[in-house]
Amino acid sequence: MLANEFYSQAVHGPYELYSLGDFALEEGGTIRDCQLAYATWGKLDAARDNAILIPTWYSGTHKIWEQVYIGPGRALDPERWFIIAVNQLGSGLSSSPHNTPAPAGMARFPHVRIGDDVRAQHRFLTAQFGLERLALVVGGSMGAQQTYEWAVRYPEFVQRAAPIAGTAKNTDHDFLCAHTLCEAITSDPAWAGGWYASNADVHLGLRHHASLWSVLGFSGEFYRHEVWRTLGFSSLADFMTNFLEAYFLPMDPNDLLCMAWKWQRGDVSRLTGGDLKAALERVTAKVFVLPIDEDLLFPPRDCAIEQAMIAGSELRVLHSKGGHLALNGFDQAFLAELDGHLRDLLAIQV
Amino acid sequence: MLANEFYSQAVHGPYELYSLGDFALEEGGTIRDCQLAYATWGKLDAARDNAILIPTWYSGTHKIWEQVYIGPGRALDPERWFIIAVNQLGSGLSSSPHNTPAPAGMARFPHVRIGDDVRAQHRFLTAQFGLERLALVVGGSMGAQQTYEWAVRYPEFVQRAAPIAGTAKNTDHDFLCAHTLCEAITSDPAWAGGWYASNADVHLGLRHHASLWSVLGFSGEFYRHEVWRTLGFSSLADFMTNFLEAYFLPMDPNDLLCMAWKWQRGDVSRLTGGDLKAALERVTAKVFVLPIDEDLLFPPRDCAIEQAMIAGSELRVLHSKGGHLALNGFDQAFLAELDGHLRDLLAIQV
Repeated sequence: MLANEFYSQAVHGPYELYSLGDFALEEGGTIRDCQLAYATWGKLDAARDNAILIPTWYSGTHKIWEQVYIGPGRALDPERWFIIAVNQLGSGLSSSPHNTPAPAGMARFPHVRIGDDVRAQHRFLTAQFGLERLALVVGGSMGAQQTYEWAVRYPEFVQRAAPIAGTAKNTDHDFLCAHTLCEAITSDPAWAGGWYASNADVHLGLRHHASLWSVLGFSGEFYRHEVWRTLGFSSLADFMTNFLEAYFLPMDPNDLLCMAWKWQRGDVSRLTGGDLKAALERVTAKVFVLPIDEDLLFPPRDCAIEQAMIAGSELRVLHSKGGHLALNGFDQAFLAELDGHLRDLLAIQV
Repeated sequence: MLANEFYSQAVHGPYELYSLGDFALEEGGTIRDCQLAYATWGKLDAARDNAILIPTWYSGTHKIWEQVYIGPGRALDPERWFIIAVNQLGSGLSSSPHNTPAPAGMARFPHVRIGDDVRAQHRFLTAQFGLERLALVVGGSMGAQQTYEWAVRYPEFVQRAAPIAGTAKNTDHDFLCAHTLCEAITSDPAWAGGWYASNADVHLGLRHHASLWSVLGFSGEFYRHEVWRTLGFSSLADFMTNFLEAYFLPMDPNDLLCMAWKWQRGDVSRLTGGDLKAALERVTAKVFVLPIDEDLLFPPRDCAIEQAMIAGSELRVLHSKGGHLALNGFDQAFLAELDGHLRDLLAIQV
């Protein structure tokens, strides 16, 4: 268990904690006194049918959704919807390697799967809010993985689903992308098998990890048009250090590795004996599949193959030179385009 | 200076060495007794007008061209053409960090630019063979960078040019790709600032470097269709270890870094004060620009932008799920397609 001020109410608050008690995982481990960190906006109506769930992505928390996606007049409008963002296990706010007491934390934190997150969220939503259905599950990247898992695992619960820039079953190429992210961290001797004394000790691994995101997280168009200039950086080197390194350096290496392991293995077909088509045929939600045109990690082609297996779904390709990390919200046209699709989806009667 | 059996006549022979004497570089260093390793096939005709030059790519040598691209009945037919492949500086066969005597080798090997290679090749071709023109310059990846440099720097010398899967001016995104390859090696403590005792000491860095190639060198389609199975591998892990790690582990880390530095900075517009259009307008060769459709390092979009600046050139997109590393020759349909384009190009009267 390590102190890390980045994962705090001061930085990410306000948020609440919900305890699941001891939570057994698909891979065989158990998280003792498992905590889910969550935030809500808006009010649950009497019929309990206006709830929207947002699961979080790799390295991101509920906070980015609050800052970028949620607000009056937006598709995710707290005046109309009761919005619940749940931070994934390993996120650093929910139970994670760095905040789990010895002897179980750090390098001993057990492997977590996307299915574990979704089961945990299901227990939380039913117990805490008495929910029986969600008007929408919407998430990006690993949040999309959880969104698909929700729609396949609990089809009766999910009325609409909007997986953004993510897949139902991870591809081998994307598995290898995340593998290199893991190697960036674990190849730093200061990582020490996960037993470092401070995340700052692993700064070189985190910086290399940031370099890989500079390649995989954005797009050729992002750099050709020097979009980073519009974000307030004076040079490519300035952008690399003061955006990407600044973003990742406060984070906990083991927490990132926990999420990456989970990301690599996202696969709804685990519920149907490996049959992806059968898994996606379980979906009864109205689904908009929302890849980003320049995304190198989850290209539209990968998403379209899955979308074709989901009855009544629509493929709506988003546009941003930002590539995958357009998710972080620096492209206003992208956000407006996404809002339009989410409005359309929420307007569909189910 | 390190012994490394990989860079030997036993593995790469037969090849010849040509000494340039002391060779001064654009960045200010000098390579003492600078050696170019080269191989030839076929015979120079009396008019000395049937010569084809092949500059080499990152981590590859003349040998892959002999094994995969040159032969009777092929576009590069030694019965018709006098074919000269020159290994780039830093390749491990020509002067390189690992084979340069102390005190100048290893981490003290000077920075080399694409322009240095092309100047060295020009001196070699004129002095050794009395050439005044080349019927064709053809190269892939860093070989394409050198091909463009040839056509811009010595337009009167180059009758035809076929840059495959490479650019005239490197993009920022590609710069970052190569940056991560460098970091993979330099973040291994055994690299020791370039002062390791054996390339084998740096095996973890080389393995991580291989992982990055698994992501950037192939394509999503390569993995979706498990093309690696057709290459004789039983699993993704088997492919990663016994193809990619096996490929890079014998190589010298400093040699790879020397080439990567050069690759990152490939830019013909250095000849025209930074004006890429002016540089490409210098080209008088007939040029076929040959990107590979699934290439993640040099996407067709990047190549098409440059092609549009070259008068009379043609964009001919090659097709392979292999992505960039289709260059290595495992896709027979790709090789046949390329041969067709090279035949067309060589048939054009100039």
